[in-house]
Amino acid sequence: MMTEMLKPTSEYLQKIGFTSPGILVNEIQARANIRLMKDKARRAGVLFRPHFKTHQSADVGRWFADEGVGAITVSSVAMAEYFAAHGWDDITVAFLLNPLEWPRIEELAWELARRGGQLALTVDSPAAAASISARPEVPLKVWIKVDAGYGRTGVHWQDETTLKAILGNLLPSRHPVGLLTHSGNSYHAQSVQEITTIWTQTSQRLEAVAHSLDMAEKLLLSVGDTPGCWSVDNLSGVQEIRPGNFVFFDLMQWTQGVCQIHELAAAAVCPVVGLYPEKGRVVVHGGAVHLSREFLEGTDGEPVFGYLGTLQIQDDGSTSQQILENLPVTSLSQEHGTIEVPSGSYEQYFKEMSIGDLVLIWPVHSCLTCDLASEFRNMSGTVLTKK
Amino acid sequence: MMTEMLKPTSEYLQKIGFTSPGILVNEIQARANIRLMKDKARRAGVLFRPHFKTHQSADVGRWFADEGVGAITVSSVAMAEYFAAHGWDDITVAFLLNPLEWPRIEELAWELARRGGQLALTVDSPAAAASISARPEVPLKVWIKVDAGYGRTGVHWQDETTLKAILGNLLPSRHPVGLLTHSGNSYHAQSVQEITTIWTQTSQRLEAVAHSLDMAEKLLLSVGDTPGCWSVDNLSGVQEIRPGNFVFFDLMQWTQGVCQIHELAAAAVCPVVGLYPEKGRVVVHGGAVHLSREFLEGTDGEPVFGYLGTLQIQDDGSTSQQILENLPVTSLSQEHGTIEVPSGSYEQYFKEMSIGDLVLIWPVHSCLTCDLASEFRNMSGTVLTKK
Repeated sequence: MMTEMLKPTSEYLQKIGFTSPGILVNEIQARANIRLMKDKARRAGVLFRPHFKTHQSADVGRWFADEGVGAITVSSVAMAEYFAAHGWDDITVAFLLNPLEWPRIEELAWELARRGGQLALTVDSPAAAASISARPEVPLKVWIKVDAGYGRTGVHWQDETTLKAILGNLLPSRHPVGLLTHSGNSYHAQSVQEITTIWTQTSQRLEAVAHSLDMAEKLLLSVGDTPGCWSVDNLSGVQEIRPGNFVFFDLMQWTQGVCQIHELAAAAVCPVVGLYPEKGRVVVHGGAVHLSREFLEGTDGEPVFGYLGTLQIQDDGSTSQQILENLPVTSLSQEHGTIEVPSGSYEQYFKEMSIGDLVLIWPVHSCLTCDLASEFRNMSGTVLTKK
Repeated sequence: MMTEMLKPTSEYLQKIGFTSPGILVNEIQARANIRLMKDKARRAGVLFRPHFKTHQSADVGRWFADEGVGAITVSSVAMAEYFAAHGWDDITVAFLLNPLEWPRIEELAWELARRGGQLALTVDSPAAAASISARPEVPLKVWIKVDAGYGRTGVHWQDETTLKAILGNLLPSRHPVGLLTHSGNSYHAQSVQEITTIWTQTSQRLEAVAHSLDMAEKLLLSVGDTPGCWSVDNLSGVQEIRPGNFVFFDLMQWTQGVCQIHELAAAAVCPVVGLYPEKGRVVVHGGAVHLSREFLEGTDGEPVFGYLGTLQIQDDGSTSQQILENLPVTSLSQEHGTIEVPSGSYEQYFKEMSIGDLVLIWPVHSCLTCDLASEFRNMSGTVLTKK
């Protein structure tokens, strides 16, 4: 009976060393997620270049290396420097070039090249492309960011003029060039069918761009979004995938139907600091600086900043995880998280719980929650290195 | 003409050393805010124990020390340890006790006592009080958290039974005791009149609690919220105030009418990475991991994650600051912030701007934005130490 699992979950979390807010990483499940995605990419014959912004952890990075992954994606130069310092040498910064960072970028590009690797940058304007070709000697690869429908950044896939201007600026410096997009619109899709439609449209549009530039055979195509890469049957049509969130997943991916409960691999651990049976409320040390203010809409239309969860360790070491949708985090301040317990069920859930017990909270958006965390521990209590 | 100030602001920010996302702290204004609050507390005869969770910076802390401040408030044991390591020895953790942190708490309490200072903890339950009185030898002060109307945590001010039970558990161990509240409801008040009403009600309710416990002369009363402490004419009725946000202020305090534009003392600095005149859009390196996802409601009812700003340095070294309400940050992803430019005014604001220029973004909630920052610089470009 899952309602009885809050106390054993707390005891387990204490046993493995948690005392303050942190993140529990289910290493076995995260490794399974990595393996599944890697195998899928290999079967499709596409390069698997996972995005490391979700975990930002050198130790979690090693789990990818254990599966033979050698190429990664990051979202800032600072993150590229961190992973380069931990041995990665084939790194794409899938975030638009900031020319003020050239001194750091050049240093990193040379360092990776010395190791036989490569740094790749992303541009979506002729000006940024010119800034790269002004440095023909710097060993870099360049991705042209294409807006294939998401509409955030990138050159619109039909804007041939700008695409040609960028390519024209890049070609003289002979840096290798590819086309990259992020189908962020797939995160708002309502079904796997819709995710698949976005995937197909995206890869077709990238191909159309390559054709329109007369570079169909020469431009590598790279896409990256967890809903698409995880859900779509056939990954063909591109040369590279860059999903990131799938390593841990989160409530957004679960409510979207992309992942299942057992595939969630990271949860916030929060100490209970206030118990208010008369108000049907529990307060934890787990606020906006731990969970982030990302929310999803609860069944009553009000924001939900996470759901409490439980886990059971089976005799074979596998875990059984639950999401307690009855126990939403309904408000956050800087350090406080408030859980509203449905009327009449306080006793059912919390009669065994005391101040200083620990609860698991499934994050709405694991990338943001993990970015905020100062401590990751795996299920054995080993502390994992983090940026 | 403020619309022409984006480029000079960028040039200034580059000159003082910004290249990547960070926080500009207007040290002169922050020091003025500190002085004003300290003088007000002194005139009212109340102890000024500022909350340091807003800045979390040892260097900003020194500006308080320069004004004679010796007592501070923090919101976690980790923050208390940080400021203790930077010389502070009279520290209140205004966050409910987490008994799992006792080993760290005891060590810190002894350390502060050795230096002639004191650690204070906060409780709102008989169980947490018992956990403290079980350690009669540990040199601690204890605050009983009272809910005087906010409704988040604390014992309801009319719940005499629980208040007496807590006091009964605390008295045997002879730790000094006080009553503490946080009037977080003042952040939702619509006028200074309403803020004053909340202030008066809060101090009267704390006094009523002290009377009901027959401890009117013995229990110190402590309140803390920037709207009240900054706006209310007469701070009497309590012995201690714990405001924090006023050191920097933010858009929430400005839209609430608590502060004026010139009193804002911290802004995010973000590199421009995408310029899209045809869409009337600008994208910066400044996402949820920099600004936080705290938002206020824009004039059209849509969320605003910050407004662009400008600043001019006058010949006498003083600054002139503007909030560009025409230029809201309308969406955030992990690292991207998107600014929507009103139809037809792209040229007016951005014709001079290039990729790699820097913009100032006034944060919605400075406590969260500063918590996320890895770099503070003052107006001279000096990097400030941060937790």
